[in-house]
Amino acid sequence: AMDGAPPPTSPSGLSAYVAVSQLLGLTLLATTGAWLGRYRGGVAWHSPLQFNAHPLCMVLGMVFLQGDALLVYRVFRHEAKRSTKTLHALLHGLALAIALVGIIAVFESHRAKGIPDMYSLHSWCGMATFVLYLLQWFLGCGFFLFPGASFSLRGWYKPQHIFFGITLFILSITSCLLGITEMLLFKISDSYSHFVPEGILANTLGVLLVAFGLVVAYVLTREEWKRPPLAEELALSMDFKTLTEGESPGG
Amino acid sequence: AMDGAPPPTSPSGLSAYVAVSQLLGLTLLATTGAWLGRYRGGVAWHSPLQFNAHPLCMVLGMVFLQGDALLVYRVFRHEAKRSTKTLHALLHGLALAIALVGIIAVFESHRAKGIPDMYSLHSWCGMATFVLYLLQWFLGCGFFLFPGASFSLRGWYKPQHIFFGITLFILSITSCLLGITEMLLFKISDSYSHFVPEGILANTLGVLLVAFGLVVAYVLTREEWKRPPLAEELALSMDFKTLTEGESPGG
Repeated sequence: AMDGAPPPTSPSGLSAYVAVSQLLGLTLLATTGAWLGRYRGGVAWHSPLQFNAHPLCMVLGMVFLQGDALLVYRVFRHEAKRSTKTLHALLHGLALAIALVGIIAVFESHRAKGIPDMYSLHSWCGMATFVLYLLQWFLGCGFFLFPGASFSLRGWYKPQHIFFGITLFILSITSCLLGITEMLLFKISDSYSHFVPEGILANTLGVLLVAFGLVVAYVLTREEWKRPPLAEELALSMDFKTLTEGESPGG
Repeated sequence: AMDGAPPPTSPSGLSAYVAVSQLLGLTLLATTGAWLGRYRGGVAWHSPLQFNAHPLCMVLGMVFLQGDALLVYRVFRHEAKRSTKTLHALLHGLALAIALVGIIAVFESHRAKGIPDMYSLHSWCGMATFVLYLLQWFLGCGFFLFPGASFSLRGWYKPQHIFFGITLFILSITSCLLGITEMLLFKISDSYSHFVPEGILANTLGVLLVAFGLVVAYVLTREEWKRPPLAEELALSMDFKTLTEGESPGG
């Protein structure tokens, strides 16, 4: 810092947990790639392999990127709130775009093969999660970014945003586990019960998804690791509260 | 109360959410019963219907009773802590006993039909959840009930107990959804995609399980609804802290 103060540090433990979450995240992407590449013929768009883009996009978007978007307030705890918020919204936006590609992949592949859509519990949970995630993204942008709601309205919405944010992350992982189970019972129903390598690998992917969710949720819910307001934010928010009595800081 | 003070009240909203959770809980038990009774021949122990005891016991024990055990500190917020704690441990103990019957049912029914055990993602998630739930129950009894650990040790363990408690509840529901998906793909794989009534009913059971988990988790995590310490608990805990400097209140 320009005034010669020591650089701000993160709570001990937090960095280790974040590092583990990123290792798990990369491992689960690699495991998804290994499953699709080694046992399912790989991924390609205009081909019978189009379906395989679905699990890859959903794990990348709805799990890895969504999880990392939730972590930014813990990781960039000493940056300006506005920058961190923007990064949070951008990562969720990227997650949504990639998930949309994954959803198009499964609908197009169903059409090509004459398979009906939206009959399974996986499809119900997954589609509900995606639609609510999109809604949560729009609400988050509207309340907190452009141009922002009043202090009192933000104060009311923030705990709901956090609760439903973690809930949608958990539902995303649950939907992935349902998808893995469906895919195994469609593709290797005869050999799954004989502990074939593909079954073990896909089960391991499920365990990795749970582990990633567990570590991210632990980091998010640990009280001492929450982002402390910067000194200037505290002063500013008190100024605004005094001046505007609950009106919008952007108004 | 004997001193003529007005009876303590619960925060407005809490009772309504708890009532909704209980309605959802009873509805999901009824839906499980309807599925097994109407489409799967009912439940019986020494018979080919033994398997059906598995979903019934797991939904009753690992979801409904586990969920209600988590809610007791919110519902009985003005009772003595020791009584509420005992009820919490008893409900979890009952949930564990019923879940054990459900696990025996699936292993015995597999043996009778020559089906291998523990190959599926459902079985991995479900067994891990049950074993960790049993461990959490023993740890909870050891730390908080008989005879209880020191204040400092309890203070360290309590947030872990709460985090893993909610995590195990979520994992229990996830395991149920995986089980529903497996069962549908084993039993009605040919007709599931044609939106037959059994498929819709079982999917609806999955949605009800998610809704029950959502309402219970919302009640548990809402800051204003946490159980406030009774006046005498506050005084007592300060006395103990001063007198014992971190030693066991039971020692």
